[in-house]
Amino acid sequence: MPGIYPKIIINFKAYNEGFGHSAHNIAKASEFVSEQSGVLIGVAPSYMEIHPISKHYEIPVYAQHVDAIEPGAHTGHILADAVRHAGAIGTLINHSERRLTLADVSGAVDAAKKANLQTVVCTNNIPTSAAAAAFSPDFIAIEPPELIGSGISVATADPAIIEDSVKAVKNINSNVRVLAGAGISTGDCVKRALELGADGVLLASGVVKAKDPEEVLFNLVSKI
Amino acid sequence: MPGIYPKIIINFKAYNEGFGHSAHNIAKASEFVSEQSGVLIGVAPSYMEIHPISKHYEIPVYAQHVDAIEPGAHTGHILADAVRHAGAIGTLINHSERRLTLADVSGAVDAAKKANLQTVVCTNNIPTSAAAAAFSPDFIAIEPPELIGSGISVATADPAIIEDSVKAVKNINSNVRVLAGAGISTGDCVKRALELGADGVLLASGVVKAKDPEEVLFNLVSKI
Amino acid sequence: MPGIYPKIIINFKAYNEGFGHSAHNIAKASEFVSEQSGVLIGVAPSYMEIHPISKHYEIPVYAQHVDAIEPGAHTGHILADAVRHAGAIGTLINHSERRLTLADVSGAVDAAKKANLQTVVCTNNIPTSAAAAAFSPDFIAIEPPELIGSGISVATADPAIIEDSVKAVKNINSNVRVLAGAGISTGDCVKRALELGADGVLLASGVVKAKDPEEVLFNLVSKI
Amino acid sequence: MPGIYPKIIINFKAYNEGFGHSAHNIAKASEFVSEQSGVLIGVAPSYMEIHPISKHYEIPVYAQHVDAIEPGAHTGHILADAVRHAGAIGTLINHSERRLTLADVSGAVDAAKKANLQTVVCTNNIPTSAAAAAFSPDFIAIEPPELIGSGISVATADPAIIEDSVKAVKNINSNVRVLAGAGISTGDCVKRALELGADGVLLASGVVKAKDPEEVLFNLVSKI
Repeated sequence: MPGIYPKIIINFKAYNEGFGHSAHNIAKASEFVSEQSGVLIGVAPSYMEIHPISKHYEIPVYAQHVDAIEPGAHTGHILADAVRHAGAIGTLINHSERRLTLADVSGAVDAAKKANLQTVVCTNNIPTSAAAAAFSPDFIAIEPPELIGSGISVATADPAIIEDSVKAVKNINSNVRVLAGAGISTGDCVKRALELGADGVLLASGVVKAKDPEEVLFNLVSKI
Repeated sequence: MPGIYPKIIINFKAYNEGFGHSAHNIAKASEFVSEQSGVLIGVAPSYMEIHPISKHYEIPVYAQHVDAIEPGAHTGHILADAVRHAGAIGTLINHSERRLTLADVSGAVDAAKKANLQTVVCTNNIPTSAAAAAFSPDFIAIEPPELIGSGISVATADPAIIEDSVKAVKNINSNVRVLAGAGISTGDCVKRALELGADGVLLASGVVKAKDPEEVLFNLVSKI
Repeated sequence: MPGIYPKIIINFKAYNEGFGHSAHNIAKASEFVSEQSGVLIGVAPSYMEIHPISKHYEIPVYAQHVDAIEPGAHTGHILADAVRHAGAIGTLINHSERRLTLADVSGAVDAAKKANLQTVVCTNNIPTSAAAAAFSPDFIAIEPPELIGSGISVATADPAIIEDSVKAVKNINSNVRVLAGAGISTGDCVKRALELGADGVLLASGVVKAKDPEEVLFNLVSKI
Repeated sequence: MPGIYPKIIINFKAYNEGFGHSAHNIAKASEFVSEQSGVLIGVAPSYMEIHPISKHYEIPVYAQHVDAIEPGAHTGHILADAVRHAGAIGTLINHSERRLTLADVSGAVDAAKKANLQTVVCTNNIPTSAAAAAFSPDFIAIEPPELIGSGISVATADPAIIEDSVKAVKNINSNVRVLAGAGISTGDCVKRALELGADGVLLASGVVKAKDPEEVLFNLVSKI
């Protein structure tokens, strides 16, 4: 699926629901809601599920991380080529729970691009968002500190929080897509994030821990 | 395969041969040589290959690493339960290319045991081998600095190098199996490692980068 | 001060009081209370204060960390020889806020010993305490999870919490001194820790953030 | 010394010469050559020597690293305020031997600025140099991979190697000074680096391990 960019990416993290039966359920729901709504939804399951999920469902699959390595003696590391071979079309890089050094963000983006993977670099404030734009990833997922774990929704937050991050990225490289990576739980949040300049959203527990992921996904795409 | 302990474990690292067609070839060869020789051989492929390889071959599959985490918000980390669910029966921990803090070696061994995974803790000298024995893993894979990257074979090295490490481990906990993790390339090396007190061997490029892995594996088991 | 082992070590961490005027005040109080009580008190200030504090006060000074390195190209790292030259007589290693890999705990203990520094290895549970004993440090400072940040005092906690950790260490190496590194705030706590088998205590904010560190220190030594 | 920017910074690393008598010698030579030549030379000694060297010599002193922390419970970390208090006027950040996460480069620059320290962010290629410029540090020290450990001098290397890095930085933020951090050993190298757009140089062993640091320093400033 080259050139196909989802509007919503679901990060399964290391939740219990991120592998096995639950993971398949979420993937299936993502496929179904994508088809019904025309809004493309991608998933980032556990590494071990990349293979089965990308074989069973017609959705873009992402790794949660790749290492800044070439093939070689790197036990326990994540090789971009192996991720690609397993069926992923992209990868998160530098998520707040899997931070990389500046040099390795650069190296991981390079490794992913060489392996023909889309790159989604996560950042934590305006300067790091601008910095990450220098690597020309496909996406930058911004997680503004004001929205992380605050319960504040993008729909009601100070618009500048999203707008300034979007500007910081687009000023450096206007081709980079911006994902709102915090403060998203409903269709109104998604709508507002897009109005404020974001190209999509990245979310996790809101879908993954939901009793009915399909229902949550239908709600998320309802206002686009 | 609970209670089944291989004599040889092959670490695929992040080599190009560690995923895809080559990985299947090595796994197939390991299965065949195990059946023919009666010497059980395990494999530690890339995370993404744990699922397909454990479905296709009757051999013990290991992860190359698990994190010291409970299920939860840990993007990009390796959850023991997810590794187990994918079909692995064990995991390497603290390989020299994926070092963990002392606290996380303890936590990763605990997480693996809870998930019913065998634990293979790698160590780099006599004191760390003794220290690791305090965690009561199933295996400790010793990589004596004298043998790492030196080209020196266990078969011709000072016997004390292996013997002293084995003693250091067994003195703390006699139930822990010791794998010789360096200086192994032929059946003579394996034979000598077992004579010196090791319970098996851990090796990587000698098999993974071989033109004919099956041939190398047959040679490795030939003197047991 | 070779062969001189404090009963109390004060960790200044990166508190505002850990450098400058406040740090001198705490060091001066430690010197005075040591002299008055006959109970030796050591201090672990910021690296930059090792030099001035060890020149001005007759107390044992510790670094808060040293790296597992030989002299060489290691920008920003802590060289044991440089710590020793600045006047420290020992160092903490593997504090819960500065965790090291298993291999580096081993390497840092070796580097410190070569530089003639006392070693105080911090651990977080019974297995890591036993493991650390394999490195034969001068001290192991135990920080039982039941006592960390719980507000529970050693004086009222389940005695087994301290006793079992002491036993785990002494079973491996009876020469290693054990410091109670959590749950200590008064003279009663110190007394109880010693009764339960500890050889001393390691504490931080209780002294460093106190309005009158001298008063707190006098209280700490009052029941020994 | 606010507003005073050296043309040459000497990184003492963790060399044996980086502390004690040798460190004082290098600092003294730096002071003397600065006075004689009018070319300001700064030094980055071991943390423990920041205090004595900044007291004894009239030269700008830098830490080799600061952590992205506020004052608090951070054992073994480097607090910018404590570095400043000890007499340093700036700090290296993200040296190739002390890499930080993207988030921590941002945090360390912020912490240093709050403590009124100059910031020298080290980078390893053109994209990371551009990225670091987004943090508006005082300096970016570029270490082009083509020059690191290659023995190739800036004076004879492809001019584009320096020029392209300088442009990448200045395009993002023209106020950021660029230091050539590799390929510098003589006055000709310094001259050439300045011609190619650099504002100064950062070097280490060439001075620190020299038999006669004063002689090397006089040579380095000779063509400016």
